[in-house]
Amino acid sequence: MTSSRIILDLEIAALERWNHGDPYGYLELSDEDVVYFDPFLETRLNGKTELKKLYDSLAGKISVREYQLINPVVQGSESMAVLTFNLLSWDANGKCYKWHCTEAYRKTLNGWRIFQTHWSFSK
Amino acid sequence: MTSSRIILDLEIAALERWNHGDPYGYLELSDEDVVYFDPFLETRLNGKTELKKLYDSLAGKISVREYQLINPVVQGSESMAVLTFNLLSWDANGKCYKWHCTEAYRKTLNGWRIFQTHWSFSK
Repeated sequence: MTSSRIILDLEIAALERWNHGDPYGYLELSDEDVVYFDPFLETRLNGKTELKKLYDSLAGKISVREYQLINPVVQGSESMAVLTFNLLSWDANGKCYKWHCTEAYRKTLNGWRIFQTHWSFSK
Repeated sequence: MTSSRIILDLEIAALERWNHGDPYGYLELSDEDVVYFDPFLETRLNGKTELKKLYDSLAGKISVREYQLINPVVQGSESMAVLTFNLLSWDANGKCYKWHCTEAYRKTLNGWRIFQTHWSFSK
């Protein structure tokens, strides 16, 4: 399997856990120095401890009943890669959220790990 | 100079041109396969030609009179690096915009080049 395929499969597996209220797939996939942005934050989170606090607060509270991951692209080298995509997700009430996403991965002794996550709303 | 310092200096030079209505600092700094997100787009832009079209439409229209670049961090290797920061920018009317930013750089024969840009509004 290519690195691109491996990274995309990791992302989708974490996203599907997320969609069922389980943010810990993303936490397990994140490296110690991970930095993180989303539209509900005023500033960047720095490091896995800060990210865990956020994810703890969200556990069990997210329910996405359907999603569409659009045009994923992986750009990178043997040891580092940036995955970008658009995402549509529909919550339990059928409301649609439209996202831009950037995930930066690096290859570690434990496999590929995220060191930067950026979620934002698209227009 | 460290790679981190070089990358941050490149970013600031492009940002300062941007703030004076000149988006071409960013265009010159971007690689052919650059991908780009901002909150005014429905989906990702793909490649320098699409990015140039956007920047052409913005040339001369942006005026930022003051900015504050907050907590820049560069994570990376010898050949690839991800710069993240928060940004406050005040337009000519004194309105403040609050941003999250991720820039992915790679080292090329022509120096460091951006291959992924993600701008979004913070809370």
